[in-house]
Amino acid sequence: MSRSKEHASQGSTTTEPDGRAAAGGSDFLQLDLTGAPAGGRTEWLAARLRAAIADGTLPVGSRLPASRVLAAELRVSRGLVTEAYQRLAETGQVSGRGRGGTVVVAAPPAAAPRAVAGPSAVPVPGGTVGAARGGLVEALRAVPGRIDLSPGVPDLAAFPRTAWLQAERRVLAGLTPADFGYGDPRGAPALRAAVAGWLARNRGIRAAPDEVVIVAGVAQALALLAQVLREDGAGRVAVEDPGSLGARRQLEHWGLEPVPVPVDAAGLDVSRLRASGAAAVLLTPAHQFPTGVVLDGERRRDLLGWAAAGGLVIEDDYDAEHRYDRAPVSALRALMPEGVCYAGSVSKLLAPALRLGWLLVPPRMRDAVTEAKRYADLGNPVLAQLVLARLMESGELERHLRFVRRRHRRRRDAMLRALAERLPGARVHGAAAGLHLMVTFDGDRFEDTALASAALALGVKTHPLSWHRMRPGPPGLILGYAAGPAGEIEEGIATLATALDGLGGAGGPAGAG
Amino acid sequence: MSRSKEHASQGSTTTEPDGRAAAGGSDFLQLDLTGAPAGGRTEWLAARLRAAIADGTLPVGSRLPASRVLAAELRVSRGLVTEAYQRLAETGQVSGRGRGGTVVVAAPPAAAPRAVAGPSAVPVPGGTVGAARGGLVEALRAVPGRIDLSPGVPDLAAFPRTAWLQAERRVLAGLTPADFGYGDPRGAPALRAAVAGWLARNRGIRAAPDEVVIVAGVAQALALLAQVLREDGAGRVAVEDPGSLGARRQLEHWGLEPVPVPVDAAGLDVSRLRASGAAAVLLTPAHQFPTGVVLDGERRRDLLGWAAAGGLVIEDDYDAEHRYDRAPVSALRALMPEGVCYAGSVSKLLAPALRLGWLLVPPRMRDAVTEAKRYADLGNPVLAQLVLARLMESGELERHLRFVRRRHRRRRDAMLRALAERLPGARVHGAAAGLHLMVTFDGDRFEDTALASAALALGVKTHPLSWHRMRPGPPGLILGYAAGPAGEIEEGIATLATALDGLGGAGGPAGAG
Repeated sequence: MSRSKEHASQGSTTTEPDGRAAAGGSDFLQLDLTGAPAGGRTEWLAARLRAAIADGTLPVGSRLPASRVLAAELRVSRGLVTEAYQRLAETGQVSGRGRGGTVVVAAPPAAAPRAVAGPSAVPVPGGTVGAARGGLVEALRAVPGRIDLSPGVPDLAAFPRTAWLQAERRVLAGLTPADFGYGDPRGAPALRAAVAGWLARNRGIRAAPDEVVIVAGVAQALALLAQVLREDGAGRVAVEDPGSLGARRQLEHWGLEPVPVPVDAAGLDVSRLRASGAAAVLLTPAHQFPTGVVLDGERRRDLLGWAAAGGLVIEDDYDAEHRYDRAPVSALRALMPEGVCYAGSVSKLLAPALRLGWLLVPPRMRDAVTEAKRYADLGNPVLAQLVLARLMESGELERHLRFVRRRHRRRRDAMLRALAERLPGARVHGAAAGLHLMVTFDGDRFEDTALASAALALGVKTHPLSWHRMRPGPPGLILGYAAGPAGEIEEGIATLATALDGLGGAGGPAGAG
Repeated sequence: MSRSKEHASQGSTTTEPDGRAAAGGSDFLQLDLTGAPAGGRTEWLAARLRAAIADGTLPVGSRLPASRVLAAELRVSRGLVTEAYQRLAETGQVSGRGRGGTVVVAAPPAAAPRAVAGPSAVPVPGGTVGAARGGLVEALRAVPGRIDLSPGVPDLAAFPRTAWLQAERRVLAGLTPADFGYGDPRGAPALRAAVAGWLARNRGIRAAPDEVVIVAGVAQALALLAQVLREDGAGRVAVEDPGSLGARRQLEHWGLEPVPVPVDAAGLDVSRLRASGAAAVLLTPAHQFPTGVVLDGERRRDLLGWAAAGGLVIEDDYDAEHRYDRAPVSALRALMPEGVCYAGSVSKLLAPALRLGWLLVPPRMRDAVTEAKRYADLGNPVLAQLVLARLMESGELERHLRFVRRRHRRRRDAMLRALAERLPGARVHGAAAGLHLMVTFDGDRFEDTALASAALALGVKTHPLSWHRMRPGPPGLILGYAAGPAGEIEEGIATLATALDGLGGAGGPAGAG
């Protein structure tokens, strides 16, 4: 039932000749916000839209009203509407964005909005990942799994507990009472200096400590930048496609519209960026997420030319410190401080749970970013900042990085061997650096969400590539190898092969079963 | 020059019969945002408005355009405009808010916008507190002072370093690798449970751990609530007058207009709240900041009736744990969970630098607050959460509280004695609890900002009461006594007496000099 067009004739709406609902307004939806619960209006709107899709008011093939139009008619923020549309995309009822509009692609299988399982959701025993609030990635994290091959997490068992505790003892012994009070919202001076040194040694960036703003990870860095850009009148930010779903969500939440720009073997396509008309671009030039490609020299020059002409580059220096088979790639920020915002964190160096990172911005944005940080939380907690400063200054963090890099490389090699043996039909991308690799499968014989679902049902967590795409492409998976030992990795890949066989097999002759 | 009306005839604007500029539009200001630097448009707008005041385009007595109108004309957010107006208020060029509009009260003494010293700024050696970005309180913090009698900070020398480090050792030893990964944005389950227990034991609040959201202090709690309220269409929030300048600023930054409601000896005037038409109110019922009054029984009943009729109460449980001469006052949240948002933190229990607090909201707002926290920073850092959970569960935090309460009481008594001796003309308010007290002076023979300035020039930091007022009232000071030893307090009060003498004396016969 869900993919047929039989609902199209049942709708009470005016449909255009091509069968699409008039995209101009929303009167036909008869939405009345007075019925919405306070604080839950996004979910309410998504549920009403699902109901309209289910009962044929919005038939398959019709376009949703432009978010700007619907927001104005309902007198709500545009972010609320785009978020509701995103929920529908997660649960598989709609797809498409940008100029073509958002199109209804499938009716929900049931009227109950929370039980929906659409094509981009991952059903699991006892629920559906994707129907939960907060999105796919977070929902997947909450599901128990035997083996976690999700990307984006380092070897957490290696966290340097002893070194951390020793540094904290010294920090506590040396603190003055004033250090326990309200501090500079930009962070503790000691850590700002240590980060400046770290970036000079490891990323080729020359920055004065005064240029560094300490933040609660790259997620907060993006939140602060989005607020400043919005305040400045920006509405659209170019993002890599494929690119991080989480980063895209973050921009959307803060009212910016992500505009997809394709990534190829040389990285982001700068000519397409130029054509997009976006005033800013968020990218991962050192190790693109999820493809793992490096932005090559010619593209770098082209991108910096675009920035010199007024474009703003936001460089997410995603896991740049983790590389195995190639020379380090310098940061864009090192080449053009006045056109590049630079964000990094300890999430891939030490642990995401520390929620600690840094942000460098061009001089013209510095005051506004400081204000945004101040009104967000008055600054990061000071103790962990001072402990990290000690670990950076003492060389402990570099020692830790060398140690985990060796471990990560062995695990990466174990995953490559297992893939060659168990999934020879999978093409491997981006294995020279990082904490994950990407595999794609030729043709489109199956949906990668179906493969991820089948693997999850067998206890193995992965990310389907389509989660991190805005436009269609071949099926694939993102596979993290850093978090667990080689034996788990081998078992996980074997399980993927089993799952793929169950879908009709696209992994090639050696696929296990 | 600054307070005369001689500029009124020089202006090129159309003035109404009463001498006020037409408040409808801003064309006459000829503001062109294309000249504004990216990321610094608030300061740019404030500077342009100062220039318009200086050259008579906006004469003394005229009203600024309504912020909504100017924002629409310039195509910027209303928050940007209200922030710019706030800058003018800080530097003394304008005053008034709400329905009467913002009125030009004085021309700047010089055209250069950063060198301005208006009546509400505090000039210090080498600069002017109040001209800096981020506001008066933060600027004062950055100024060196011999003795700090600013309010809002506990005895930081008493921070339980040993207990903290011991708890952290146990936490680090017990963590699983997964604990170092991305967690629940609402906080670590162990701390949410510990906070629920703490609130039950100390504040009479019954809450399930699942209802607790861990946040980066009350400042972030207000930021999250403001975002949710704005998303829900709220535009105005009632605040206590006098009340916290910082809290007011926080609401304004996030796009809410604070509406002043008077505080008298029984606390917030609920009938005036009702008349204000605001849908929500932020208040400090257990120990009102800065007056120290307790919201009395009749007002509580009246306020909860207002909440039962649909109003939303935001309870900032400001330093409720610190009381000396009176019985504990239960939290409003304990009486009406479905109508009260409750925010607390360890800033006054342990240290502001920990940036750690909690927020409880009515069920209808829970999902929206979780989303706001997720997109703010993905959740608080986990290590400090687990350490605090241990200190709460082990009884260590209660022991610490009993210890600092005795110390704070002795310091409070030292300040009361010094005031009686050195400033007998000062009326003391709110000394039965908290970490500060308020003094007022009869009549209006001087501006309290002048007194605070004179004291700061002698090395003593205080807050003038007028900083925390929205409407006029007698001069006063807010004096914190928790941070330093009795000797410093006595010396600080003696210095205040000297400063007051220098202004012409209103402290009474015993004022030193």
